[in-house]
Amino acid sequence: MSEPVTSEPMTSEPLNAADRLLARIDAAGAPICVGLDPVVEKLPAVLRPAAGDEAAALAIEQFSVGVIDAVAGVAPAVKVQAACFERHGPAGVAALARVLAHARTVDGLETILDFKRGDIGISAEHYAASARGAFRADWSTVSAYLGTDSLTPFVGHGHGAFALVRTSNPSGDALQSLRLANGRTVAEAVADIVAVQGASSVGASGFSALGAVVGATKRADAAALRTRMPQQIFLVPGFGAQGGGVDDVLPCFRADGRGAVVTASRSVIYAFDAADRAWHEAVRRAAEDLRTQIGSAVGVRA
Amino acid sequence: MSEPVTSEPMTSEPLNAADRLLARIDAAGAPICVGLDPVVEKLPAVLRPAAGDEAAALAIEQFSVGVIDAVAGVAPAVKVQAACFERHGPAGVAALARVLAHARTVDGLETILDFKRGDIGISAEHYAASARGAFRADWSTVSAYLGTDSLTPFVGHGHGAFALVRTSNPSGDALQSLRLANGRTVAEAVADIVAVQGASSVGASGFSALGAVVGATKRADAAALRTRMPQQIFLVPGFGAQGGGVDDVLPCFRADGRGAVVTASRSVIYAFDAADRAWHEAVRRAAEDLRTQIGSAVGVRA
Repeated sequence: MSEPVTSEPMTSEPLNAADRLLARIDAAGAPICVGLDPVVEKLPAVLRPAAGDEAAALAIEQFSVGVIDAVAGVAPAVKVQAACFERHGPAGVAALARVLAHARTVDGLETILDFKRGDIGISAEHYAASARGAFRADWSTVSAYLGTDSLTPFVGHGHGAFALVRTSNPSGDALQSLRLANGRTVAEAVADIVAVQGASSVGASGFSALGAVVGATKRADAAALRTRMPQQIFLVPGFGAQGGGVDDVLPCFRADGRGAVVTASRSVIYAFDAADRAWHEAVRRAAEDLRTQIGSAVGVRA
Repeated sequence: MSEPVTSEPMTSEPLNAADRLLARIDAAGAPICVGLDPVVEKLPAVLRPAAGDEAAALAIEQFSVGVIDAVAGVAPAVKVQAACFERHGPAGVAALARVLAHARTVDGLETILDFKRGDIGISAEHYAASARGAFRADWSTVSAYLGTDSLTPFVGHGHGAFALVRTSNPSGDALQSLRLANGRTVAEAVADIVAVQGASSVGASGFSALGAVVGATKRADAAALRTRMPQQIFLVPGFGAQGGGVDDVLPCFRADGRGAVVTASRSVIYAFDAADRAWHEAVRRAAEDLRTQIGSAVGVRA
């Protein structure tokens, strides 16, 4: 884990992360991502653990692996929420590494480590090395508040980053919606930083390995941000359980139906009755529904 | 680790984090913090590990424990940089937990987990539970870009948080220095959010368990932020190796010499020749120098 590990042969340049993600979206037939935010209280009854972090970590690992297998071939990407694993201390972090390692064995599946790190200098480099090496993720989510110092270590060598630009939670407005003296909002100022910084990592697809998180509950903002960041792939959380609908996510896409990935978590991974032993099937059906819903709306060919 | 663990008896309300930190500063004689950012390349020769993350994690743990013991009784606080440990995967995270557990055994030593998390909802609660439970830290550093949703889970039950307001890195200016339509900078807008939110967790000392990170290299900004956040303790990185001097940190303090903690990392923890087997003594002397330098400047009685 001390060195970045990739599945690509070391003799050739790894594929640009944006190009790889878009190819996988095309292959799967819809720009969707399943968010893995596992908590023990919501697991299927057959997986409910005994007390303690070791047992909890093992249970959420088993559940996560089950979800990944259930959505394989349906979703081109999974996003794993680090907090759910870190909650359980070192045992949880070890489980997180194993879950991402498993996801990597699934053909055509892009992995996003949702850990929202934001630091500078050697600390930012450490986090990036961790994402690439220890966790072997394809993408990281990162905070841009400290500027490009926090972003650049995460972009390149086949890895990509989604910078937090506009989030779906109500209290995010208190800062992100503020109007600057030159007319932009704070979120738009972050978007401009991301657009400029991302220009150096644009792949053959015309999209950058530096993307943006844009919440699905901010419809009007999304359209403005799409214009400001023409080369960014938008990672769009907030669909489904958080209240965003199809109409809310459409402005995140370009007119050609490309440029965004809609992520749904609770509405897919908990789409079962707790007592249902065949919970995998319910999860797969929910992922298929998501694929149909988003795929038909944005017109990506299945 | 699934439940918050504190050293206080569960029958009484834990001490407000700000009150506890200030009492420890008074006892130590100066408002200083030693930053633990251990990297294998800079360890004393006697601790240099073999290859691999397991060995590296063990080596930085041994070094960190040695530094903590060396500065015990000199510095009232240590700040542990999570990235340096996460760099080494699950083994590194396990080492981080042990280092913080060790720091907790040192009388009068406040612990700050510098992990700069910034998430919302249950993810923010998971991170807070991790800081309190798995890592048993007294304080966390947190990002405020997503608003108060990211801050509130970290404040209370004896735990405190330092929100990132103004950072010491050059690229932070691109966002933090921007001027809003109403005349404030973005950093000042964040400061106002922190000041308002922190009002509900002010202790007997008059300071809040919600503090602020304000870099030591932004002298003019620090004075303005001190005025906007009268009840916040400032955690002030950037002293020493990052270029900040005594004159730069003074505006972070109130006129009575209270309200800030100056943190130095590299200038203290690497204050030895690599070949020096008595490296602990050099680290202790560097911490004593820091105490003298800051203590005499701000006039806190030793």
